[in-house]
Amino acid sequence: MSLPKLRLALAQLNVTVGDLAGNAARIAAAARDAVAQGAQLLVTPELSLCGYPPEDLLLRPAFIEACQQQLAALAAELAALPIAVVVGTPLPLEQALPQSRSQQAPRGLNGAVLLQGGREIGRYAKRELPNYQVFDERRYFVSGREAGLAPLVFEIAGRRIGLLICEDAWFEEPAQAAKAAGAELLAVINASPFHIGKPAEREARMAATARGVGLPLLYAHLVGGQDEVVFDGASFALDAGGRLGARAPMWSEQLLLVDGEGRGAVAALPEMEAQVWGALVTGVRDYLGKSGFPGALIGLSGGIDSALVLAVAVDALGADKVRAVMMPSPYTADISWIDARDMAERLGVRYDEIRIDGLFGGFNTALSPLFEGRAADTTEENLQARIRGTLLMALSNKFGSLVLTTGNKSEMATGYCTLYGDMAGGFAVIKDVAKTLVFRLARWRNQQHGGREVIPLRIIERPPSAELRPDQKDEDSLPPYPVLDAILQRYMEEDAPVEQLLAEGFDPAHVDKVTRLIKISEYKRRQAPIGIRITHRSFGRDWRYPITNRFRA
Amino acid sequence: MSLPKLRLALAQLNVTVGDLAGNAARIAAAARDAVAQGAQLLVTPELSLCGYPPEDLLLRPAFIEACQQQLAALAAELAALPIAVVVGTPLPLEQALPQSRSQQAPRGLNGAVLLQGGREIGRYAKRELPNYQVFDERRYFVSGREAGLAPLVFEIAGRRIGLLICEDAWFEEPAQAAKAAGAELLAVINASPFHIGKPAEREARMAATARGVGLPLLYAHLVGGQDEVVFDGASFALDAGGRLGARAPMWSEQLLLVDGEGRGAVAALPEMEAQVWGALVTGVRDYLGKSGFPGALIGLSGGIDSALVLAVAVDALGADKVRAVMMPSPYTADISWIDARDMAERLGVRYDEIRIDGLFGGFNTALSPLFEGRAADTTEENLQARIRGTLLMALSNKFGSLVLTTGNKSEMATGYCTLYGDMAGGFAVIKDVAKTLVFRLARWRNQQHGGREVIPLRIIERPPSAELRPDQKDEDSLPPYPVLDAILQRYMEEDAPVEQLLAEGFDPAHVDKVTRLIKISEYKRRQAPIGIRITHRSFGRDWRYPITNRFRA
Repeated sequence: MSLPKLRLALAQLNVTVGDLAGNAARIAAAARDAVAQGAQLLVTPELSLCGYPPEDLLLRPAFIEACQQQLAALAAELAALPIAVVVGTPLPLEQALPQSRSQQAPRGLNGAVLLQGGREIGRYAKRELPNYQVFDERRYFVSGREAGLAPLVFEIAGRRIGLLICEDAWFEEPAQAAKAAGAELLAVINASPFHIGKPAEREARMAATARGVGLPLLYAHLVGGQDEVVFDGASFALDAGGRLGARAPMWSEQLLLVDGEGRGAVAALPEMEAQVWGALVTGVRDYLGKSGFPGALIGLSGGIDSALVLAVAVDALGADKVRAVMMPSPYTADISWIDARDMAERLGVRYDEIRIDGLFGGFNTALSPLFEGRAADTTEENLQARIRGTLLMALSNKFGSLVLTTGNKSEMATGYCTLYGDMAGGFAVIKDVAKTLVFRLARWRNQQHGGREVIPLRIIERPPSAELRPDQKDEDSLPPYPVLDAILQRYMEEDAPVEQLLAEGFDPAHVDKVTRLIKISEYKRRQAPIGIRITHRSFGRDWRYPITNRFRA
Repeated sequence: MSLPKLRLALAQLNVTVGDLAGNAARIAAAARDAVAQGAQLLVTPELSLCGYPPEDLLLRPAFIEACQQQLAALAAELAALPIAVVVGTPLPLEQALPQSRSQQAPRGLNGAVLLQGGREIGRYAKRELPNYQVFDERRYFVSGREAGLAPLVFEIAGRRIGLLICEDAWFEEPAQAAKAAGAELLAVINASPFHIGKPAEREARMAATARGVGLPLLYAHLVGGQDEVVFDGASFALDAGGRLGARAPMWSEQLLLVDGEGRGAVAALPEMEAQVWGALVTGVRDYLGKSGFPGALIGLSGGIDSALVLAVAVDALGADKVRAVMMPSPYTADISWIDARDMAERLGVRYDEIRIDGLFGGFNTALSPLFEGRAADTTEENLQARIRGTLLMALSNKFGSLVLTTGNKSEMATGYCTLYGDMAGGFAVIKDVAKTLVFRLARWRNQQHGGREVIPLRIIERPPSAELRPDQKDEDSLPPYPVLDAILQRYMEEDAPVEQLLAEGFDPAHVDKVTRLIKISEYKRRQAPIGIRITHRSFGRDWRYPITNRFRA
């Protein structure tokens, strides 16, 4: 007797947090598609039913209950299909853990159920709960191991498949436990936020896991943006030796079909700049799209940051949904104006100009009785930025479009930005992109689509300036960006000690300046809009510094 | 042979996060004081050496190393004193936990050491790590139990004392383990953030623990503000039956001396309003003081919220460090102006007025070509608020004072506030105080100090209004505040399901409106300044909702 040939489908889905009915519909559509392509099993990503991360929604009993109801409805909808479906969903904890007297013990499990023939035929709960970087899973979940749930191994077309959830597969025990329970193949469901280097790292770690237990491994992943994180897709399959047998593209929904040895179509991983561009475009498209904003509004300065954000926004939303506003002051150079207008024309977006001279004068007049003859200082620079922020927000309020802010990571780190000024807006597209990478991305984008230069070269080549006083240059106030960004990476992203930086040859004055600026700018960052995380440490959920803090290394 | 009489000192200290040398000096001073008062043991609070919570500073190896160096210096400084001292400090993890492949496994232990005669004679690490509400201890620490550290029991004047750290004493195992290791008395070191009801709850839980093991229990607690949390002090001691034997006052540094049965001086717990007032005053004083701001700046409106914040600020900082600014528009009623001036005079703070009519007209003119004849709406209301925010921030920039914002919890919940407008500022004093409590606090404050009415009665009795358009009243847009606040408590603070609220008799239209407003205002709150937490659930570290979220119960 020969077994039927095994055919498995990994659903790389873009779900929305909290949209239970919409996500269930997406899973059901993928199941129908998988059946049409001859698959016997559909594997959907981690928490595919509710989206990831649902954060404190998981503390609401009504949320977990609603997931249970939606799961029952989905099981009924799938009943007639000749396919088994793995669905990621929070599961209620059947009984409280012993001993805890705390008011807020976790209420649920990060679970997955296997649906077949209209009912649940197996369930599993994540055993390893990440509680670092952007992850807070110990806040929400009890480990399946602590809750006493066994590994889940189920049979499809005569092959026994063991289920794991994301972090499980970065440890040894869950895979070994699944193998001990009879698994001949591992199916891992995931929500693994993108950062530079993550796709390759993820595949390498999973290869180690596959080799460690000597089993093929399927990796089903989310795609799409959720607030500050983006999921890149690139679902894949490995054979028992850890060798790549199939990979879905990044940044789009896909159904990846593989056989029992993990073989299928193999998409290439694109170069770094293309990965980051995909992250930014996906982040913008989904932040606006999932919340229903009609479009985006960007204040152009004639500089490279706003130029880059405009290019991202147009790639994400289309030129008809993006609007640019230039708000020149007496300190705005003519070429800034010319370049901003040129850029808007190249991209075909609506472009308006509002001079701020009169408003700036009005504020100076209103404040002069209280300023008591004091000299101009950064107060007046901030005033200009805040007038611009107020104008953009008025346009946003009147027309409903979201203001995209244009500050980069180097500025966010050093506080080289104005609260309620250029920081005013709903989404900070490049807040995790260091200035040196801003330059790389601008040049990279200009080389795409046959080298049609969307960002005028002069914008890329001019020395950066905030243009808030005469002849101002960023590098008058900050170390050269290549130095600043290198210190930022070592000190902020990698927690390197100051002594280590000095040993690596950085100028002590530069190290002192950058680390001091990072420290004193915490209050600004705390009020910054969220933005897209593209490094393994962004100024978001993965950066939780006290504002009140006297520690200096 | 008779044993020397046991005398123990609990140091209720106000330490500063990251100020290792300053905190060590404070501990040493308390030790000298304790010796002078005949104590043989000084017990300092949880993480007394580095302050609590140090948050992501704990991910820096250089921070834990600096704590170790400061601890050695402190041991040397204490060497000549005839007293043992318990110091709370992070401890480095001697070896990584097995199995983990994660990049960011916790690097330390939430520890305590016993110093005597110039050296460490015992160490302990917290076994129960809270990871709920504002706590993220699983992000930073490995449990002492998992790290294989034994309970710490040490002898002082012939009595064996078992050490516990905060959450440990809310569970059974750590106290039982200490007793099994010979403890005759429990000393618990704590950092337990204040919220309404917490002091009484804490004492009740500790009484249950004391009774459970049949041992006296000493509770040494922090006092003071750290960003959004305030520690209330009120250190205490219980006998083996859980009966209160001693209690330090709330909101001030104290050395509480007790005997071996937990007997000493007993301060009363003040009434609820006094506790909250103490929390607000402490929060403001420490946020400004610990970061070195010269004073505070408040925009007065003539309404009760800004009046209350002004009174808190004056109580916290003194009238000479507080400055009030009234910024009337065409919609400001005469009595608002009169009352604001009256209030400033009663409190003796500097008061200025800046009319915003001209600036408002300037923005309307600048925007009119782009507004294309559209009718006035909330855009114009927000403009007024943002002009005021910009003026206050200009004064802050020019003079260095911190802007205190005046929005209450009911407004933060419903989004009845303007980003970059009335939300502009460094510290949101009453962001966790619901409007109904704002009224109670105002009346309570007027009754203190012999009933000297600092907040004019008319400010308390007028119907609340934002005064951003003619004849505007809050209750035109929102349910009556007693209803709004009750829904807020059940739905937001207690995660009650909507069905439950309806069963409790709330008007469905009110429930729908409030829950919808809470949901759609998430983006505003994410950019709000931090402020003082006074309930068990504030819009701070204990409220982590996604902005992109389609879930509605």
